[in-house]
Amino acid sequence: MSVLALTGGVGGAKLALGLYHVLPPAQLSLVVNTADDMRHLGLCVSPDIDTLIYTLAGLVNTQTGWGRQNETWSFMQALPALGGTDWFRLGDADLAMHVLRTQRLSHGESLTEITLDFGRRLGLHASVLPMTDDIVATRLQTEIGELDFQDYFVAHRCQPAVQRIRYEGAEQAQPSAAVVQALRDPGLEAVLLCPSNPWLSLAPMLALPALRQALRDCHAPVVAVSPLVGGKAVKGPTDKVMAELGLPASALPVAQMYADFLDGFVLDTRDAAVQSELEMPVCLEDTLMHTLDDRLRVARSALAFARQCSKRRRTP
Amino acid sequence: MSVLALTGGVGGAKLALGLYHVLPPAQLSLVVNTADDMRHLGLCVSPDIDTLIYTLAGLVNTQTGWGRQNETWSFMQALPALGGTDWFRLGDADLAMHVLRTQRLSHGESLTEITLDFGRRLGLHASVLPMTDDIVATRLQTEIGELDFQDYFVAHRCQPAVQRIRYEGAEQAQPSAAVVQALRDPGLEAVLLCPSNPWLSLAPMLALPALRQALRDCHAPVVAVSPLVGGKAVKGPTDKVMAELGLPASALPVAQMYADFLDGFVLDTRDAAVQSELEMPVCLEDTLMHTLDDRLRVARSALAFARQCSKRRRTP
Repeated sequence: MSVLALTGGVGGAKLALGLYHVLPPAQLSLVVNTADDMRHLGLCVSPDIDTLIYTLAGLVNTQTGWGRQNETWSFMQALPALGGTDWFRLGDADLAMHVLRTQRLSHGESLTEITLDFGRRLGLHASVLPMTDDIVATRLQTEIGELDFQDYFVAHRCQPAVQRIRYEGAEQAQPSAAVVQALRDPGLEAVLLCPSNPWLSLAPMLALPALRQALRDCHAPVVAVSPLVGGKAVKGPTDKVMAELGLPASALPVAQMYADFLDGFVLDTRDAAVQSELEMPVCLEDTLMHTLDDRLRVARSALAFARQCSKRRRTP
Repeated sequence: MSVLALTGGVGGAKLALGLYHVLPPAQLSLVVNTADDMRHLGLCVSPDIDTLIYTLAGLVNTQTGWGRQNETWSFMQALPALGGTDWFRLGDADLAMHVLRTQRLSHGESLTEITLDFGRRLGLHASVLPMTDDIVATRLQTEIGELDFQDYFVAHRCQPAVQRIRYEGAEQAQPSAAVVQALRDPGLEAVLLCPSNPWLSLAPMLALPALRQALRDCHAPVVAVSPLVGGKAVKGPTDKVMAELGLPASALPVAQMYADFLDGFVLDTRDAAVQSELEMPVCLEDTLMHTLDDRLRVARSALAFARQCSKRRRTP
């Protein structure tokens, strides 16, 4: 049996870690957003993949949710004097990932092969799968012009109001063979959408036509865990972006965005009022995940709910 | 007025630092060996250039003579778990140099432009000039087969006996325009060969036909500072390599190697017995450079000697 989860970085990694501990070894595949990836200082940086790998491997900085624990910053400190930009912070130990990834990509290995190899070497018993080996880049049309994702997210701290989001390259990009295979696995029990930012972390995956179609065609139930608690984002700009895009601060637009493939929705208990509007099976759960126990609890609850969901009949 | 010095890494950098302090600002150009450079983990590493820059900028680790002071090593510590090799040690702050150099080279800048820019940014008032912007690589035929320079020097700690040395690419390589210009500068007072390893650090430069010819044609006197003290290398494998190549442990073969362009030789007082064999003007000096004062003393002595040397008449 197997379970597949779609996730972005810090927010989704909380549920991913819960699933990782709750499921038996080798049953979990995580499909990770790569539209935040960037070439920075010549290095291929994959922030969401690294957050997932560090989180599952127990290497993550638990204060920030990203980067490595016990990190040093000598590289960053040396950059400005040599003319290097330091707005995007790369820790010294973290650099090992970026340098080796960049070298292996330049030698023709795919991001999927490299990511799986890093995971194996760090002893992971889950498969961390980049959504695609092609280049997809989230770009945000904002009140101050179009921004690359990390420019918006890190340099501008999500401050500029977002008018439109596009996922450059997504129309032409193919999900990796490993992702397609995992979605077609006859032993697949459930697909979970982690409580990542729907517009910034999950939408880039869903913008891949073949990935979205594979979710529609999937024989296993597909369940989303709401990224909102009491109509607000736990962390990050989900509710801010929703407001800027003219959407109500509610799980409803999230569920509507997933409507063509979703079979169930895990809603935070604080948002129970929305339940009647969702037009699909709903599981009410306290989705705040402060502790590891919280992560295990939400993972167990979402899994149990997904396993009892049946595939919804849709008009083709 | 200007002075030009040819140098390798740690050994030559001692005299280079002396010259840097003794000469007025903007009068010193250092032509640096690049045949030890390598692509490592995908990064363009120029060990001798970096040693010179760090030394002149006061950033060098004075214990080792290479790398940066107060360095951290988190990158190296993280590499093995991800499958990266760690036989060649790159410090965390040092990585800033390699990452930025690699990025700028990939954007089409020359090694000379990048090196001069790093020097300017670090406030150097000397020009550190790579011997060439082309690729030259020292390769050593040894008793255990042919080795790349850093493989021989670092991984094998200079242990395998050397049978033959070649400087791959040198025949086709051109000295940079900046090097040629510095050697033709009408204000050039003297050219010094630093006490670097003649076969491993200076010979690669001399293997560039146009660079050697420019030394022969140079209007300023060319003076070498002996790398041997009492017939032995101060540090490094100079005497070991000489013995393996069948040469006596003496300054004589060094002077002979430079015979076609050399106008004078700074010999260590302990090697005074060789003086009569050298067939050129000799300056006797205590060339051991433990302290900064030693470096200043040897620099002053070599400069004064060079300035009084006249160009030797040679049969064409």
